Amino acid sequence: MSASNMSVSPKKVIGVIGGMGPHAGVDLVDKIIEQTNASSDHDHLPVALLSYPERIVDRSTFLFDETDTNPAYALADILRALDAAGAVVAGMPCNTAHAPAIFDTLVDEVRGTGHDVRLLHMIEETVQFMQATMPHIDTVGTLSTQAVYDLQLHRAPLEAAGFNVVTPDPPMRERVNTTIFDTTFGLKAQSHPATPQAKQNLLDAIAHLISKGADAVVLGCTELPLAPLAADMDMVPLIDPAEILARALIKSVHPDHLKPVAPRLAAFQTT
Amino acid sequence: MSASNMSVSPKKVIGVIGGMGPHAGVDLVDKIIEQTNASSDHDHLPVALLSYPERIVDRSTFLFDETDTNPAYALADILRALDAAGAVVAGMPCNTAHAPAIFDTLVDEVRGTGHDVRLLHMIEETVQFMQATMPHIDTVGTLSTQAVYDLQLHRAPLEAAGFNVVTPDPPMRERVNTTIFDTTFGLKAQSHPATPQAKQNLLDAIAHLISKGADAVVLGCTELPLAPLAADMDMVPLIDPAEILARALIKSVHPDHLKPVAPRLAAFQTT
Repeated sequence: MSASNMSVSPKKVIGVIGGMGPHAGVDLVDKIIEQTNASSDHDHLPVALLSYPERIVDRSTFLFDETDTNPAYALADILRALDAAGAVVAGMPCNTAHAPAIFDTLVDEVRGTGHDVRLLHMIEETVQFMQATMPHIDTVGTLSTQAVYDLQLHRAPLEAAGFNVVTPDPPMRERVNTTIFDTTFGLKAQSHPATPQAKQNLLDAIAHLISKGADAVVLGCTELPLAPLAADMDMVPLIDPAEILARALIKSVHPDHLKPVAPRLAAFQTT
Repeated sequence: MSASNMSVSPKKVIGVIGGMGPHAGVDLVDKIIEQTNASSDHDHLPVALLSYPERIVDRSTFLFDETDTNPAYALADILRALDAAGAVVAGMPCNTAHAPAIFDTLVDEVRGTGHDVRLLHMIEETVQFMQATMPHIDTVGTLSTQAVYDLQLHRAPLEAAGFNVVTPDPPMRERVNTTIFDTTFGLKAQSHPATPQAKQNLLDAIAHLISKGADAVVLGCTELPLAPLAADMDMVPLIDPAEILARALIKSVHPDHLKPVAPRLAAFQTT
């Protein structure tokens, strides 16, 4: 479709629920821009981002019974606001928020109030992408918070799709969790750029997963930095669910604007 | 104010009009996050970003009479949508859009339709910041597109505030303009990261402005990359209007959450 045709009917708006943590929403918008095939400013897709950190109760706090306030209701308010701003599809860059107790409640709540914006499921999109593009991968390692390990948010759908799944041994799990949450060197405290200690811990954890047989590693927390890790790790593909979500969002509204799969991942298709 | 007090009344929402070009809005949200004094996810301020590139006619095309479609009306629609999403104050990271023919029309249009979201003026905020924090600066150099030079969007308010202003000689102006717009090596085509050629051109232009007496340089186009230039240039302060706008937006709604001025600029206060 030519640029002049594109301008006849306005492009459909992609919505982003941000705020879990402050950078995750912005990073997803960046990834949407990066994955869009555009030759001018005007070719880029319209995106609405609502990043309201304080309104969203910590997901793990709810899931582990420390509060009965389900963040799904605040997330539903934000999704309705995105719908009101014109979004026809939306994504939520937070792995923990995809726990069924939150995600399913959110979808039911929004559907029940008459809004038809479609919320993609980041983890399901990731597993589908891996099935479609990585037929030679047998065993997948996952890096995530302790909460996401406990909830098996990646293990369950990956196994259902036929992958073997390996996770770090308990001491390394603890180290990964600390690397995300530690208030001095952790990724939530300092992620742009990550501290050398955080980066080294993650590289060690990836090496540990490879030693347990991983042919690919899912960076299953939106705080895990793709770029600096990818530059150092060329042994196995690193899968960034937020990047896959960005691609799925573009594909759902403007497939003609989706860039080819990056060489980093595409190269792996042929091995 | 303690964190618990903050959660009693919800924080006020900052709006961002993005899309001029695709990265500028995201970069402003990043700068708001960076300039916010926060010790947890929940301390960060709520931000709404609407980035609709194709709806906004190129500002220079309008200002130089190549079309009579004033982008102010599309910008007003976006600002009203930010108001509807709860924004009480907003910013627009595009220098050219602050030309009076656009900015004043936009403000009148939104005020005339009963919306009271307040749009800060990025260039005025920048000049006020420099007046307040840089009393020892006499001469300011500016880097911008040819359109912004022709419109004197930085020169006029800087001179009104008592600064001398220097701009590049015509061949260097042309080189700066090309560095922004060139479709192969230019910043609009490739800004994350900038190409070596683009970066070298900008460093040359800054050296040229210093040779013409500049004690500070305003990076007067939101495509000009602060971080890589700042790392190489420690001779004069580089002023990023989008960073000043981020600070002004925070200050206008939650001054208690504004970080101190960065050492890069604060150090200059005492010379």
